[in-house]
Amino acid sequence: MVDAGHAPLAIICGGGSFPGAVADAVAARGRRPVMFGIKGWAEPAVIGRYGHHWIALGQAGRFFRLAKAENCREVLFIGTVLRPPLTALRLDWHTIKLMPRVIRFFRGGDDRLLTGVAGVAESGGLRVVGVKDVAPELFVAEGVLGRQRPSPRDHGDIDRALKLIATLGPFDVGQAAVVADGHVIAVEAAEGTDHMLARIAELRRLGRLTASAGVGVLVKAPKPGQDRRFDLPSIGPRTIELVTAAGLAGLAVTAGSTMIAEAEATIKAADRENVFIVGVREPAPQ
Amino acid sequence: MVDAGHAPLAIICGGGSFPGAVADAVAARGRRPVMFGIKGWAEPAVIGRYGHHWIALGQAGRFFRLAKAENCREVLFIGTVLRPPLTALRLDWHTIKLMPRVIRFFRGGDDRLLTGVAGVAESGGLRVVGVKDVAPELFVAEGVLGRQRPSPRDHGDIDRALKLIATLGPFDVGQAAVVADGHVIAVEAAEGTDHMLARIAELRRLGRLTASAGVGVLVKAPKPGQDRRFDLPSIGPRTIELVTAAGLAGLAVTAGSTMIAEAEATIKAADRENVFIVGVREPAPQ
Repeated sequence: MVDAGHAPLAIICGGGSFPGAVADAVAARGRRPVMFGIKGWAEPAVIGRYGHHWIALGQAGRFFRLAKAENCREVLFIGTVLRPPLTALRLDWHTIKLMPRVIRFFRGGDDRLLTGVAGVAESGGLRVVGVKDVAPELFVAEGVLGRQRPSPRDHGDIDRALKLIATLGPFDVGQAAVVADGHVIAVEAAEGTDHMLARIAELRRLGRLTASAGVGVLVKAPKPGQDRRFDLPSIGPRTIELVTAAGLAGLAVTAGSTMIAEAEATIKAADRENVFIVGVREPAPQ
Repeated sequence: MVDAGHAPLAIICGGGSFPGAVADAVAARGRRPVMFGIKGWAEPAVIGRYGHHWIALGQAGRFFRLAKAENCREVLFIGTVLRPPLTALRLDWHTIKLMPRVIRFFRGGDDRLLTGVAGVAESGGLRVVGVKDVAPELFVAEGVLGRQRPSPRDHGDIDRALKLIATLGPFDVGQAAVVADGHVIAVEAAEGTDHMLARIAELRRLGRLTASAGVGVLVKAPKPGQDRRFDLPSIGPRTIELVTAAGLAGLAVTAGSTMIAEAEATIKAADRENVFIVGVREPAPQ
């Protein structure tokens, strides 16, 4: 029997390109990834490059059977899965036995949902690992990533947004905010970062923002106390596109806890659009 | 010379119907309102019912001259004026002399802007009064306003949103939030309440919200420490329309500090749509 760290890694895959990036990093270290694509979320082109299975949300029993058959000892969750409406779940018998616990997750905020999922995975005998454990190179490092650098004003905006996100921690809301010249102009909740950035572009078009184009920073940071094995903030080329359309100066993300998709393409896009990307240290817990 | 409380009241009017409602209440008490419509914001049909002048933002000198000629001793600010882009200001000489102070307002959040405006008005010899001083009946009272009543779950959502808004106070952001079954689904920043409610309707249409239709509460409250003479939260028939479109159960506003426009029409709309309106006590300062 191989030890957990060398046995194949079960990767439960939501949407986006991160599942593929994690699988590549895992495979590059000589470990076999086994992709479990969540129906409706995982992208066939992304998970199809490795051995894979499809599961529906709520099929914990099916997942455990398959993971066991594949000799997996550890599982990682990656990719986009928005909190599903309960009616969208396909519940199998194993999951129904877990229902009292599942219901508890759904009544809490996202953090409790995720911590709950980890508990279920562990009840099935698998250890839950985070991206940091298996592919630390997918995280943004501290410092400036491209050619543009944040100005002192940008640094002021970054500090204010980091403090705001930290303050919101107990409400289990928001991994992102936009601050322009000291004013908080957007706080992310259920809409997600892309939607929030599109709103800023719209408010600017309507003349509802007073900060000039080229002023303002998108800041992303994990919620304080968030389980770092799940749902970490992430950026990619699309983020640069939306930051540019919103007329912001750049974006700041917490070093070591924000993932970057297609790093090269992201930085190239930032340089082309003259927006900065900076990895900043997380504020100390208050 | 009449005392300040009986001299004509200068009302600086932004957009919406509140300037007219305040003028009606003032006139009903036998005091003459003098409307100063802010160009681009005040509505001719609203301010035209009383003696009025038009002023542009930044024309402090012109305003003081006219207010003095009308024998006004007190001034009240009411209606919608979004923070203007600096380029939209028409500065007169009096205002230019005040520029160092004006610039300071624009670098702060809204609260500092408003407190700054009050300082300028007072430097011109006028006392700034609030709606509460002249028309307290325009505020929502404590208790349920229409036929629908909030459920215990709604009360939980209301408490959470009130705490969130209180927590955001130091960031000078947000007089409103939406919480559904314990989840914070929207926090208002630069976009305003209407835009935030439209977003919830859109997220619901896209299947991005998990709370069922009919669950969730819009909560509006003044920011802690906000100068109550300005920019108070307000609701009206349009709010009910948007709360309904967003699929929420109702709305809660702080009693005594939230204004209600066209109270009868608002309550009628709420009863028709089966949404509740409740005036709640503000949480004690933390």
